[in-house]
Amino acid sequence: MKRIGVVGAGRMGHLHIANAAANPRLDFAYVADKDIGRATELANRYGARACSVEALIQDPAVQGVIVATSSDAALDVTLSARRAGKSVFVEKPLSLSLETLRQTAAEFAGPGPAVFVAFNRRFDPGFATLRSRLRAGEIGALESLHIVNHDPAPPAASFIPRSGGLFRDFTIHDFDTAAWLLDEPIAEVFAWATCLIDPAIAAFGDVDTAKLILKTKTGRLCLISNSRRTGYGYDQRIEAFGARGALRAENLHRDTVSLWNDAGAAGAPIHYAFPDRYAEAYRLEMDHFADILTSGERPRTGPADAISALRLAEAAGRALASGQAARLLAGE
Amino acid sequence: MKRIGVVGAGRMGHLHIANAAANPRLDFAYVADKDIGRATELANRYGARACSVEALIQDPAVQGVIVATSSDAALDVTLSARRAGKSVFVEKPLSLSLETLRQTAAEFAGPGPAVFVAFNRRFDPGFATLRSRLRAGEIGALESLHIVNHDPAPPAASFIPRSGGLFRDFTIHDFDTAAWLLDEPIAEVFAWATCLIDPAIAAFGDVDTAKLILKTKTGRLCLISNSRRTGYGYDQRIEAFGARGALRAENLHRDTVSLWNDAGAAGAPIHYAFPDRYAEAYRLEMDHFADILTSGERPRTGPADAISALRLAEAAGRALASGQAARLLAGE
Amino acid sequence: MKRIGVVGAGRMGHLHIANAAANPRLDFAYVADKDIGRATELANRYGARACSVEALIQDPAVQGVIVATSSDAALDVTLSARRAGKSVFVEKPLSLSLETLRQTAAEFAGPGPAVFVAFNRRFDPGFATLRSRLRAGEIGALESLHIVNHDPAPPAASFIPRSGGLFRDFTIHDFDTAAWLLDEPIAEVFAWATCLIDPAIAAFGDVDTAKLILKTKTGRLCLISNSRRTGYGYDQRIEAFGARGALRAENLHRDTVSLWNDAGAAGAPIHYAFPDRYAEAYRLEMDHFADILTSGERPRTGPADAISALRLAEAAGRALASGQAARLLAGE
Amino acid sequence: MKRIGVVGAGRMGHLHIANAAANPRLDFAYVADKDIGRATELANRYGARACSVEALIQDPAVQGVIVATSSDAALDVTLSARRAGKSVFVEKPLSLSLETLRQTAAEFAGPGPAVFVAFNRRFDPGFATLRSRLRAGEIGALESLHIVNHDPAPPAASFIPRSGGLFRDFTIHDFDTAAWLLDEPIAEVFAWATCLIDPAIAAFGDVDTAKLILKTKTGRLCLISNSRRTGYGYDQRIEAFGARGALRAENLHRDTVSLWNDAGAAGAPIHYAFPDRYAEAYRLEMDHFADILTSGERPRTGPADAISALRLAEAAGRALASGQAARLLAGE
Repeated sequence: MKRIGVVGAGRMGHLHIANAAANPRLDFAYVADKDIGRATELANRYGARACSVEALIQDPAVQGVIVATSSDAALDVTLSARRAGKSVFVEKPLSLSLETLRQTAAEFAGPGPAVFVAFNRRFDPGFATLRSRLRAGEIGALESLHIVNHDPAPPAASFIPRSGGLFRDFTIHDFDTAAWLLDEPIAEVFAWATCLIDPAIAAFGDVDTAKLILKTKTGRLCLISNSRRTGYGYDQRIEAFGARGALRAENLHRDTVSLWNDAGAAGAPIHYAFPDRYAEAYRLEMDHFADILTSGERPRTGPADAISALRLAEAAGRALASGQAARLLAGE
Repeated sequence: MKRIGVVGAGRMGHLHIANAAANPRLDFAYVADKDIGRATELANRYGARACSVEALIQDPAVQGVIVATSSDAALDVTLSARRAGKSVFVEKPLSLSLETLRQTAAEFAGPGPAVFVAFNRRFDPGFATLRSRLRAGEIGALESLHIVNHDPAPPAASFIPRSGGLFRDFTIHDFDTAAWLLDEPIAEVFAWATCLIDPAIAAFGDVDTAKLILKTKTGRLCLISNSRRTGYGYDQRIEAFGARGALRAENLHRDTVSLWNDAGAAGAPIHYAFPDRYAEAYRLEMDHFADILTSGERPRTGPADAISALRLAEAAGRALASGQAARLLAGE
Repeated sequence: MKRIGVVGAGRMGHLHIANAAANPRLDFAYVADKDIGRATELANRYGARACSVEALIQDPAVQGVIVATSSDAALDVTLSARRAGKSVFVEKPLSLSLETLRQTAAEFAGPGPAVFVAFNRRFDPGFATLRSRLRAGEIGALESLHIVNHDPAPPAASFIPRSGGLFRDFTIHDFDTAAWLLDEPIAEVFAWATCLIDPAIAAFGDVDTAKLILKTKTGRLCLISNSRRTGYGYDQRIEAFGARGALRAENLHRDTVSLWNDAGAAGAPIHYAFPDRYAEAYRLEMDHFADILTSGERPRTGPADAISALRLAEAAGRALASGQAARLLAGE
Repeated sequence: MKRIGVVGAGRMGHLHIANAAANPRLDFAYVADKDIGRATELANRYGARACSVEALIQDPAVQGVIVATSSDAALDVTLSARRAGKSVFVEKPLSLSLETLRQTAAEFAGPGPAVFVAFNRRFDPGFATLRSRLRAGEIGALESLHIVNHDPAPPAASFIPRSGGLFRDFTIHDFDTAAWLLDEPIAEVFAWATCLIDPAIAAFGDVDTAKLILKTKTGRLCLISNSRRTGYGYDQRIEAFGARGALRAENLHRDTVSLWNDAGAAGAPIHYAFPDRYAEAYRLEMDHFADILTSGERPRTGPADAISALRLAEAAGRALASGQAARLLAGE
């Protein structure tokens, strides 16, 4: 068993702690959070102890650190933990600042423990199955891709100013998914976005509804649809169109029970939000971290992937501002 | 174009008339009905004329007669028309009396025009596709069969005493479907039935909810489920289980539009009743009659099939009365 | 019964003739085509006569003319027939030239018989149901729209140079559908398109794969996806996202039979091409023409809708050429 | 944490051990099995120890025992453990002998620790949702029930003679499910069964394909379909028909990815066998055992339910032998 600690006792921290505690290869030992009460409560529930970030990082028995802080703190904790010789599991996108990330790229590329930047979509069994069947040639050469990523309900308005904006906070998942599935460099981005859902979002200069098109070097096209609200749960779908057919990964429903009455045939709702929808993906992320710690497996995604996704977010921002397709800049 | 006339201007008559009028190979010329007003109105709508049954049958220009009368009159009109040299399209089951039908069997088997006893399920594209794929060996040897045949709402209580009872009036379709799909003699029948829906049906000694099992000589089993009421439309499904898999024919929905909201995923209702559910089957029945008239094709189903289905209905009645499996009697 | 004639004995002509012949309110009397043999054959099959376009248009007994010629001839025949006092049913988009259409706009707007420009999607029961439920407020205010319009297989390369290009020939349907559903002016268009399927299409300077975004004045967004090839039939879907949920119109499958074996659960293919997929829409178009002829109903779509759709096609062309969102020009 | 041990290191034992080890309220400490090697290996994997049944039962620190032995040993171990003051989780049906079970009924009904006889269907989220929506009145009064329970592939022939026969070994689940859903006494049973799949099964006097009908006192009907082989996975479905509609619990598919090509629309296979299909049910069973141990909750199912299900199995056997509906005997 590999001893690990978690930094951040918020919603994501709690989710990762539950998976770490249930994983037979991990010994979940510490929680660090500025809110000591919250850290203590969470630690007690899983037979662990609350401690400071520094204590956690300095403990030589700790081999891995899970960073589930807010986006603005994640990079610093990741760097400190890595410098102290710990392998790190950190929530995407590591940092909201492309410039800052670029400054750390050389360090991350250099020798040292593994840093796993967790993009949960890549661990979703449906999306992973779609990708492996795509790679196996079931639909011939890939021609285009449709990604639907719609949230059930907008976040609290107070979150908007520190979110980094829709593209860095939310579309970031789709940029990574597109890169993962298209398997060739994305050359250009176009984006239109508006605020149709919550005027409070517009008041912060952000948008809540967006449609984007990505174009690869060879002309493959990828549509992305984003919305901060569905009214029917967390809409998460991918369609891949190829020379001989299409592959679709559909939404997951809460159960398989349907009601047949004079109103029609009513199926169960889809999962409402990410903890349920991606429950299996989060378990598999933790298992991947256990692989990294126990067998030295390379992280499937790391800081370079965070940089790639943020470059697309920046390009989308330029496209939105100019009404013009934005090229991915070499130095970006 | 082959000139035809229709006897019976009720619901089934009207349905067949619309299909006959639209068929480019049929010249729909006459309607005969005891209710002259109804016959005249219907004739006018389709550019035909009302006349008496006798006039219709005696007209040498008429080549085919469609018999859409009530069950108690159908056999006599069929015999008269056939004796007058007309090919006949008659609604199943030709007669509710097995004994009477047996008495006419020799005449029907003898030389004379074709008599097509219309069992609509055999013309349903879904069921016909299921059967041809079954025959093509897609699931290997057939082992068992499930037939669901549930009506949306019970008929008027006044119909019950002249219906012949659930097995002769309603399950008759399933007996024919089972014989058509099993493709070997049915040896025994068991049936349980109760009156759960409308006490008026029980008052006439009839039932409205039934479950039956048929067994063939080699041990294949067929479940039949009947109900006079669903609350959600006309539930018409077949499943065939074989050595290598299963084939299912599902219900037809009114359209493909679904609504996604906080209550779940709501599809369109299934078709409510037989005119919509079997619209295509009725069109294909009429086209089969056109084939019979124009190219001398043999009817796919005739009086012998009506006898087979009624034998099963009688056996089911015996099983229900005795609580014991009923063998199909040789002389039955 | 209203007497009508058809100009054009090609694929679309034949399809419309079958529906006209089966419509009880229409008396299908004439077919005109440069290829006399083809016209005669088709006329004979439905009990009509072949004649010249001039004879058809001059016959005072003819009340309606269906124009099913190639796109380059449609406008002239439509104008001649209308000037001769006939109501006209003409295939979309009436003309491939926006400039020419604009020159005739005043004439069409002036007094004279009705001209019905047939955009078949509006008559599809699924899409029409989606629209009426949208209008009924089932998902609250509409926010965005996704239209998938993918052809099963590319047309013969020889068709490409006279097609008007993907946007005028194919996306034209989606431009009209978007206008019909969004119910407010479309202000801007962005388009990316490439040739991924057939190099012969690129050789003519055309594209076969396209993704477009439309934006309305109030910021609603509409995605359109086009492909000249699916490998799995004619993919025709619409999704509407609103403040309280979503409505989807899914593809129509050939039947409802599914096969369950070790490979999974295999449903029937979707319809392969437009004659099957839109069979009901074409019937309803013809019935709408019968309404126009018999009760003086106004055509649901006319030359002004063709102009609107072509303006969007031109704007999409400008966007594609410039890599920049194109505004709908006032004088366009 | 409550300390528990497991008797039986076979397939079911392993499955329950994995869930016990992952449950934060249970301290999984011992495995007992005649095959010491197997017990030791399994214990090591989960940080527990192998021991004898006697040692396990006599350890005062052990509060709960999970009995996952073969059917013929389960009852004795259960009785010993209970007499030693342990709460017991035992696999259905506790014993294959109704007579033996009856002899122990008084002891189980008397004071002592809880005995939870695990019928996994009751813990399946889909079936449990169906039941609670049924109880909530969503389809009005229940009228009939269809249960499909088909295994993917027949067991090894060597298992057949000690299985107790299809009804006691396999249909036992459906008897319990029917009792749970019908919520009123089942009065009569009819059964037909044949051997269509594996002649080795017939050689042992058993059957592999069965259709049964149950009837309650008030005339509600329940169809059960059993097969030892599907060719497409573990077919587990329930449909409930009521006065105002129907509720269906469908199969669970391995994932939500579908492939669209010229062969149609192919969904993922359903789960192949019970460990995957009922994975969540087994987790919830273990959680229920944790509830019993920690908060003294009453077992949802106990020896009385095993007796009820075995009574139906015996009645089904009589019906099969006689070709006649079998009444549930009072003294049975």
